[in-house]
Amino acid sequence: MKGLSILGSTGSVGTNVLRIVDAFPDQFTVVGLAAGDNVEKLAQQVARYRPRVVSVRSAETRDALERCLDLGPTRVAVGQEGAVEVATHPDAALVVASAVGAVGLVPTYRALQAGKDVALANKETLVMAGELMVAQARERGGKLLPIDSEHCALHQCLDGRRPDEVRRLVLTASGGPFRTRARETFDRVTPAEALAHPTWTMGRKITIDSATLMNKGLEVIEARWLFGIRAERVEVLIHPQSVVHSMVEFVDGTVLAQLGVTDMRLPIQYALSYPERWEAAIPGIDFSRGIRLDFDVPDHERFPCLGLAYRALQGGGTLPAVLNAANEVAVAAFLDGRIGFTAIPDAIREVMDDHPPRPVDTLDDVLAADAWARERTQAALKRRAMETV
Amino acid sequence: MKGLSILGSTGSVGTNVLRIVDAFPDQFTVVGLAAGDNVEKLAQQVARYRPRVVSVRSAETRDALERCLDLGPTRVAVGQEGAVEVATHPDAALVVASAVGAVGLVPTYRALQAGKDVALANKETLVMAGELMVAQARERGGKLLPIDSEHCALHQCLDGRRPDEVRRLVLTASGGPFRTRARETFDRVTPAEALAHPTWTMGRKITIDSATLMNKGLEVIEARWLFGIRAERVEVLIHPQSVVHSMVEFVDGTVLAQLGVTDMRLPIQYALSYPERWEAAIPGIDFSRGIRLDFDVPDHERFPCLGLAYRALQGGGTLPAVLNAANEVAVAAFLDGRIGFTAIPDAIREVMDDHPPRPVDTLDDVLAADAWARERTQAALKRRAMETV
Repeated sequence: MKGLSILGSTGSVGTNVLRIVDAFPDQFTVVGLAAGDNVEKLAQQVARYRPRVVSVRSAETRDALERCLDLGPTRVAVGQEGAVEVATHPDAALVVASAVGAVGLVPTYRALQAGKDVALANKETLVMAGELMVAQARERGGKLLPIDSEHCALHQCLDGRRPDEVRRLVLTASGGPFRTRARETFDRVTPAEALAHPTWTMGRKITIDSATLMNKGLEVIEARWLFGIRAERVEVLIHPQSVVHSMVEFVDGTVLAQLGVTDMRLPIQYALSYPERWEAAIPGIDFSRGIRLDFDVPDHERFPCLGLAYRALQGGGTLPAVLNAANEVAVAAFLDGRIGFTAIPDAIREVMDDHPPRPVDTLDDVLAADAWARERTQAALKRRAMETV
Repeated sequence: MKGLSILGSTGSVGTNVLRIVDAFPDQFTVVGLAAGDNVEKLAQQVARYRPRVVSVRSAETRDALERCLDLGPTRVAVGQEGAVEVATHPDAALVVASAVGAVGLVPTYRALQAGKDVALANKETLVMAGELMVAQARERGGKLLPIDSEHCALHQCLDGRRPDEVRRLVLTASGGPFRTRARETFDRVTPAEALAHPTWTMGRKITIDSATLMNKGLEVIEARWLFGIRAERVEVLIHPQSVVHSMVEFVDGTVLAQLGVTDMRLPIQYALSYPERWEAAIPGIDFSRGIRLDFDVPDHERFPCLGLAYRALQGGGTLPAVLNAANEVAVAAFLDGRIGFTAIPDAIREVMDDHPPRPVDTLDDVLAADAWARERTQAALKRRAMETV
């Protein structure tokens, strides 16, 4: 049995991971669970899996958890230190990194430092600190297994092939809700319109990222680090049906594609079962009534966020972390109704223009760039808001 | 350097194999070449590659070849015995079996018996004697590497996965020239119409097989043996653009597909380079102006040959060999204008109905069924022709 720790156990990925643990009871033993403040759900998980260690956001949450159930031999830790304890527990061989946002960065890095295999559902980890993470995995022998459906698709198509056998990676994008919307109406896009994703049901922030195509830009950055393929060989295609999750073109002219229903259990299970495949009650593609798949190149004029992500990769160093932070702040402002849709890329561009990239030698370099970019973006948005008034 | 023998060296597959040998001069040394009567082309090949042994159809062809050039140390053999000598030469590690028709059967079997890896472009080998061939390969440790584009696609998607990880294989078919033609006009189909294939340029017999979908039926039989997947888990989809060459659905719900341009060099090179991939001047899929891919289930009423192939697999034993022989005779008669298009499946069905399948223990069992079916089909066609008059 493989020891498993989950960062973000009460979230949607964490919950699905535990369902797979239930379905394959001989495969895993749950060693550690790290969550935020969802005491009720965490208490149920602790009662069921009796992990060696759990971690919660704060001392108050810990106290609430202790009031909920008799923890028995389960140790409760707190905050980032607690999450690191979960991520590096000696009995854990595989760590699922599914905490949302920058909070997962340090524990994930420490897991790799401890030589663990890491199943990665946290985008920020590779966007902000891809080079560091990959270097750490290589040095300590841990595997980085993507849970994102596009990267899981690439992982399956590559299946151990060397980067020099690859001509290009092709990430597919649904195109989001505005794939066919006229450019001149983009400044009138409302948060409700942007939240209506055509094919995937996801969280609010990532749904907006899908509408701007920034999500695909972030995935280009992730793919670059995960698979060791330079950005100019990572391409994006619009594929509105979301049936093909991504493709790899090899040097001999062959293209392999991974297809599947839009169900997160598929990539999650693959990351857990890799290198094996386990039977799952997930249907394949239903071709019985015919099916049509379209592919087209993205329109960079309507979706400038994609180009900004390539620019961040080219700039290198701290620039991807700045892109990521500026985007997070701008998307939150858009969702709050403080800025318009087209102000998202404008704000990110402004902050990137103002940031001479610095080399990334430690996680602190990344976190400093992140903090700087958040503050700088807030200031930019405030000035924009004042100008509009 | 890997020693290479080619059965059918002057044909289109053989010629392409030698082009790949030219492109990767450090990979192969040409050990043996077997051809039919194309003296001029064979003489050029002998002059260039100086193989240890060549084989031609007859003593007359041998004499003609000897008049063409100074053979030096190259030995010339004749007939089936000669082809077996080429296929089993001790210096050959890989044998390309690309002789057309039943003539390739015995030499291919002997190559497997001698423990060679066999790159297989000869359909009849697996359709007529799949079980024997696969058993021989397993027993003597040789690999069977498909050159057919569909099976090469499956081979790439499977990439060493075990049969118990596979839910189904999906072979794609262009649908041929009559994909959308009304059923009631099928009896008026002319050979010229049937020879106008929409996506692939191939020989006459296989082009007619594409128009009847028998080609796909034969491929279902091949796939069953090559990959050890029972017929009920091998499906066919109509895909008019011929971009996806085939797909595998795995037990975890994932589907892998291989895409490529319709260029035989792609599967040929993969069979030669396997398990590596070598750089080739073959483009990937051009998505730059958008692309649309359609998939639909086949219409068994208009294309009964497909169902006959499944029936042959279910019947087992000698029945697939009977199907194959009856089809060859019927297609030749159609091309000669002796029977109509819809008489092809009718004749095959009649001969199959008349054949209680016998077990296949040796190649002789297969060859006897083949001879019986050819004679029986000729008789059936003659009677039909007389009835029509």
